[in-house]
Amino acid sequence: MELLKQRILTDGVVKEGNILKVDSFLNHQIDIDLLNEVGKEFYRLFGGEDLTKIVTIESSGIAIAAIAAQYFHLPILFAKKAQSKNIDGEVYSATIRSYTHGNDYTAILEKKFLGPSDRILILDDFLATGKAQRGLLEIARQAGAAVAGIGIVIEKGFQGGGDALRREGYNLQSLAVVDEMSPQGIVFRDL
Amino acid sequence: MELLKQRILTDGVVKEGNILKVDSFLNHQIDIDLLNEVGKEFYRLFGGEDLTKIVTIESSGIAIAAIAAQYFHLPILFAKKAQSKNIDGEVYSATIRSYTHGNDYTAILEKKFLGPSDRILILDDFLATGKAQRGLLEIARQAGAAVAGIGIVIEKGFQGGGDALRREGYNLQSLAVVDEMSPQGIVFRDL
Repeated sequence: MELLKQRILTDGVVKEGNILKVDSFLNHQIDIDLLNEVGKEFYRLFGGEDLTKIVTIESSGIAIAAIAAQYFHLPILFAKKAQSKNIDGEVYSATIRSYTHGNDYTAILEKKFLGPSDRILILDDFLATGKAQRGLLEIARQAGAAVAGIGIVIEKGFQGGGDALRREGYNLQSLAVVDEMSPQGIVFRDL
Repeated sequence: MELLKQRILTDGVVKEGNILKVDSFLNHQIDIDLLNEVGKEFYRLFGGEDLTKIVTIESSGIAIAAIAAQYFHLPILFAKKAQSKNIDGEVYSATIRSYTHGNDYTAILEKKFLGPSDRILILDDFLATGKAQRGLLEIARQAGAAVAGIGIVIEKGFQGGGDALRREGYNLQSLAVVDEMSPQGIVFRDL
C-alpha cells in the first residue's frame, strides 16, 4: 500500500533494538484518514471472504479493526490482556510473549463471543515474530472458529514471523513489509 | 441517546459490585454500527467546538474515539498504561485508580503529541468515579492543553464522578446516565 509506505518513510523512526516507531500516526497518535484507507485496503483484500467477526488484541489493533469493520459491516472482538474484575465466566486464553514490552502476558476472550460457527479475520498493527497473532490463532483453535485471513498493517519481514505463518498456509496479507531497516533507511518488500 | 439506552436495557447485564457489563456491544465485542451512531452523537454535541485532537485512554476508549474522530476529521491520541520499550522521550503521566481492575496504574502520553496550542475533546466508554477522566485532565494540565469537553458513552451517575466534574465547570456530556441499577432493572437520568 503505497500511501502507507510513504507515510512510514516520512514519519516512521527506526530505533535501537529493531524498533520501528510509527506512534505519530498508527499506535499512539492515530491518523484516522490514513486508517480509513487502511480499512478499505483490508476490505479489498478480504472482502470476498465469508466472515462473521473481525478479531484483534488490545490495544494497538483496536482502532484498525474498528475502522476496517465499517467496510465489512461486522462486529469486532478484541482479546484482552490479563485479568480484570469485568471478565467473568469461561474464557479462552493464550500466553503471549510481548516483543515490545519484554514480558509474557495472557490474552483472554470470553467464550460466549466466539465459537465453531465463526469464520474470522484477524487484524493487527504489527507483525514481527508473530507471537501475538499466534496467541489469537490459539484462541480461535480453542473456539473451533475458522481463520479466513490475517491482515497486518506493518510486517517486519526480517524477523520471519510472517513468512512462517504463510508457510503454514495462513492467508496473511500485510500492507507494508519491511525487509531491512536501519537509522539510514527502510527497504520494503515488493508485494 | 435513545438507541444506546435501549441497547443497554436489552444487552447490558448488572453484576455484583456495581458492575454494568456491556461487553457484548461496547468494550469486548463491539457493534460498529452502534458506535457510528455514538460517534455522530458526539459530533452533534461537540462539533461546534474548535478542537485540535481527540484524546482517550487505552483500551476501551480507543474504538469509540477512532469511530467518532471520522466525523470531526481529527487525529486521536490515546494515553497508554504503564511503561513500554516503545515509549521513549519525555512523557506526561498521571496515576489512576482503576475501579474495574482494583489497582493503580500510570497513564502516559508522549509530550510531543500534546501542547499549549491544543484544544482537546476527551472521549471514553465509561465514567463512574471519574478517576480515568481526571488522569487525562491531569495530562492535559501538564501539557497546557485546553479541555473543550468530555464525552462519555455510559455514565454511572449514582457514583457521582460525573456530577463532580460538571460542578467544576467541565462540559461533560454523557450519552446515557444510569442513576440506579440492580439485577431487577436500570433507571436512566432524563437528559
